[in-house]
Amino acid sequence: MEKKLSLVGAGPGDPDLISVKGIKTLAQADVVLNDALVHPELLNYAPSKALKIYVGKRAGKHSYKQEEINELIIEHVFSHGHVVRLKGGDPFIFARGKEEIDYAESFGINTQVVPGISSINLAGMYSLPLTTRGVNESFWVVTATTKSGELSQDVAKVAETTATAVFLMGLRKAPAISTAYALQDKADLPAAIVSNGSLANAKVYRTTVGHLAQTISEQKVASPGIILVGESVVQQNDFTTIKSLQQHVTQI
Amino acid sequence: MEKKLSLVGAGPGDPDLISVKGIKTLAQADVVLNDALVHPELLNYAPSKALKIYVGKRAGKHSYKQEEINELIIEHVFSHGHVVRLKGGDPFIFARGKEEIDYAESFGINTQVVPGISSINLAGMYSLPLTTRGVNESFWVVTATTKSGELSQDVAKVAETTATAVFLMGLRKAPAISTAYALQDKADLPAAIVSNGSLANAKVYRTTVGHLAQTISEQKVASPGIILVGESVVQQNDFTTIKSLQQHVTQI
Repeated sequence: MEKKLSLVGAGPGDPDLISVKGIKTLAQADVVLNDALVHPELLNYAPSKALKIYVGKRAGKHSYKQEEINELIIEHVFSHGHVVRLKGGDPFIFARGKEEIDYAESFGINTQVVPGISSINLAGMYSLPLTTRGVNESFWVVTATTKSGELSQDVAKVAETTATAVFLMGLRKAPAISTAYALQDKADLPAAIVSNGSLANAKVYRTTVGHLAQTISEQKVASPGIILVGESVVQQNDFTTIKSLQQHVTQI
Repeated sequence: MEKKLSLVGAGPGDPDLISVKGIKTLAQADVVLNDALVHPELLNYAPSKALKIYVGKRAGKHSYKQEEINELIIEHVFSHGHVVRLKGGDPFIFARGKEEIDYAESFGINTQVVPGISSINLAGMYSLPLTTRGVNESFWVVTATTKSGELSQDVAKVAETTATAVFLMGLRKAPAISTAYALQDKADLPAAIVSNGSLANAKVYRTTVGHLAQTISEQKVASPGIILVGESVVQQNDFTTIKSLQQHVTQI
């Protein structure tokens, strides 16, 4: 019996956005511990005899604390062998993956991490560029809500820059995000909200950073959601002057 | 014949890090246009009769300009049908995916984007956390080299913050990155360089931001490489005080 912990990124909702390596790893699982944001179909990639344990942490329902999940991992590695910890998105992007890895390694357990497509990558899926050549050169990913539940100080700092801001866990902090940009006289900056990731019920809302809270309230934006803010988010390239290829089209 | 452009993220090197959706899309390709950083094995997922065109842009070799790639896409959509543009990493993270989408749409072509695991996600694979609860709340992804080849002004700005910096295309700008942090009296901050992504010859180098250029030179760090800088990068959780579970281990 091989004692091992694999952290696998399940991707941002759509079960087809898991990696091939993620599937191969699931196929070798003795136990799967899965999160709330993991699509249930992904469990079918694990052997039918594998133990599946739901450890989802969601508001309003019974949930495991991180410390309890850490213990569950260790106990099942020693009792069953290969534990696959299936986490929504990427296991190392605001997902406490490192804590689980370090804890397992403190027991001498071998570990591996299979990265996943993060909610950050949804920007491309919905044609919302994070950067545009000539407009900006960076994007800044901020968890709006800190460990203590307060607003991160980085929200005010990102508003000072030209970086596209990507706010995770930010829906409830929308008024504070708007205020931070208003203080920089940037309330009119384009913003987009992606709700429900890449699931069938995903939605994209385009607004301005000043109207974030209003949009969330009026449109009843569902959690989880990410918020993008910046000039680049609505950037549209203008190719209408390229005559030769327009001719090419009309010929066909 | 369906006229369509699909941008597919090939992931960060290891061919098993492409998504299931990426493979399914490749299987329906009439033409594949692939980049230099795309693993050649991925072309096997496309039908054998599909046309495969290498459009890699690499220093020292003949390369296609972005404008030429845009034209190739349009021409092949109209002559062959479904063009899959297979791009290293994620098509929308510093990959000019939006330009290709906008150009195709200006010809009335349907488009879709299949996100990919980006080199940013390698941090997890190599157990280099971008954020650590209680240490910092954000990471900032910067292309060190701008459109004009100069250093991005964001390099100086990220050095002022507690965000973990992720510098893409930064190996040649290492001395300037070191200077930016030295000006903030932060030359001793932990840094890591990930070279060759998730390929078999990938390597991770741990150093400080002040010694980046020296490390790259002495260790002959190969391109492509990403540079991570910040307190969080070396963060190690200390679980040695959890006695009950240590006993659990010795019992087994």
